[in-house]
Amino acid sequence: MRVVVPFAVDQPKTRLGELLAPAERRGFARAMLHDVLDALGAAGHDPTVLATAPLDVDAPTTVDDRPLSTAVDAVLDDGPAAVVMADLPLATPPALSKLFDASGDVVLAPGRGGGTNALVARHPEFRTDFHGTSYLDHRRAAKRVGARVETVDSFRLATDIDEPADLAEVLIHTTGAARDWLVDAGIDLATNETGRVTVRRDRIR
Amino acid sequence: MRVVVPFAVDQPKTRLGELLAPAERRGFARAMLHDVLDALGAAGHDPTVLATAPLDVDAPTTVDDRPLSTAVDAVLDDGPAAVVMADLPLATPPALSKLFDASGDVVLAPGRGGGTNALVARHPEFRTDFHGTSYLDHRRAAKRVGARVETVDSFRLATDIDEPADLAEVLIHTTGAARDWLVDAGIDLATNETGRVTVRRDRIR
Repeated sequence: MRVVVPFAVDQPKTRLGELLAPAERRGFARAMLHDVLDALGAAGHDPTVLATAPLDVDAPTTVDDRPLSTAVDAVLDDGPAAVVMADLPLATPPALSKLFDASGDVVLAPGRGGGTNALVARHPEFRTDFHGTSYLDHRRAAKRVGARVETVDSFRLATDIDEPADLAEVLIHTTGAARDWLVDAGIDLATNETGRVTVRRDRIR
Repeated sequence: MRVVVPFAVDQPKTRLGELLAPAERRGFARAMLHDVLDALGAAGHDPTVLATAPLDVDAPTTVDDRPLSTAVDAVLDDGPAAVVMADLPLATPPALSKLFDASGDVVLAPGRGGGTNALVARHPEFRTDFHGTSYLDHRRAAKRVGARVETVDSFRLATDIDEPADLAEVLIHTTGAARDWLVDAGIDLATNETGRVTVRRDRIR
């Protein structure tokens, strides 16, 4: 099955802005992409990066600067495909295998906050809408075209990295390039005033 | 296997204070407990509630007002047991079966932020510490006594409900008593200024 990993080249991860400078956000986003491509490769797949601009990365790349859903739908126009977001550094081969082994016409891996972090689309009429609570929208869209939906229950696939507190999940649960990047940047686990685990940064490089 | 569900009777869910009054937090916590007990029952288990005070609930109850880790360790003193937190309304029988079917001496279901949302302890020397990044602490504690650790990858078990934004997960992914409680309280999905899905409350009852 074709596997695409959408990637925003220029302005990734704006919600990490309070902790990371723009160039750093780009560097960290690349590290996460690296980990996702690595996990997909180890799970036996040959992913293509669906990038908003040309990109130097060790994988085939398709450039499409249209909005995410439009670019993904253009991929689905050519037949069944899987879409795995680039900000899932917790993804492991076993977690990804749950996605690929599920048999639904449409397989969804929900993200926190109602997002869709990965999907497999085998139904010819299913199209995407990654805006808002896309998990619910994708369920409805599948139902509309008569596609059988299956949901993958994975913490690792549900954990997209958007906000500073999310970085704690990278430090706790991973050992790849994204984690190394954070450690090199001086980002470490911390507990905030309400007792929730988050991160702090001791130095700026 | 014995299954205990710890439950704080008096002051549950303080971080929901901006949205729910104290009596409401108690009511919502009971609804979540109901859903967890229901899912455990449907998965073939007979859970006991490990409550901090006497409680009117449709399950056997043990009262122990000591700190959580002390009360749980007293359960483990009597042999293998599973611990499932009461604030996991997304738990389903299949998600719980992943926990019970895993074969480790210690099986951990991590929560967001490094917590431990459920565990199975089969090693006689393993004891708990639910403070802070308990997932990492429990891994270390297991290693110290030579227990083999297995981790369960489940979004449903990882999603404990602590903060207002977490309520969105209940509305998106569940159909039980906790969801009904939120709907009755006028709590609905909303999108905040950064585009993240959360909840809003239109009325106070």
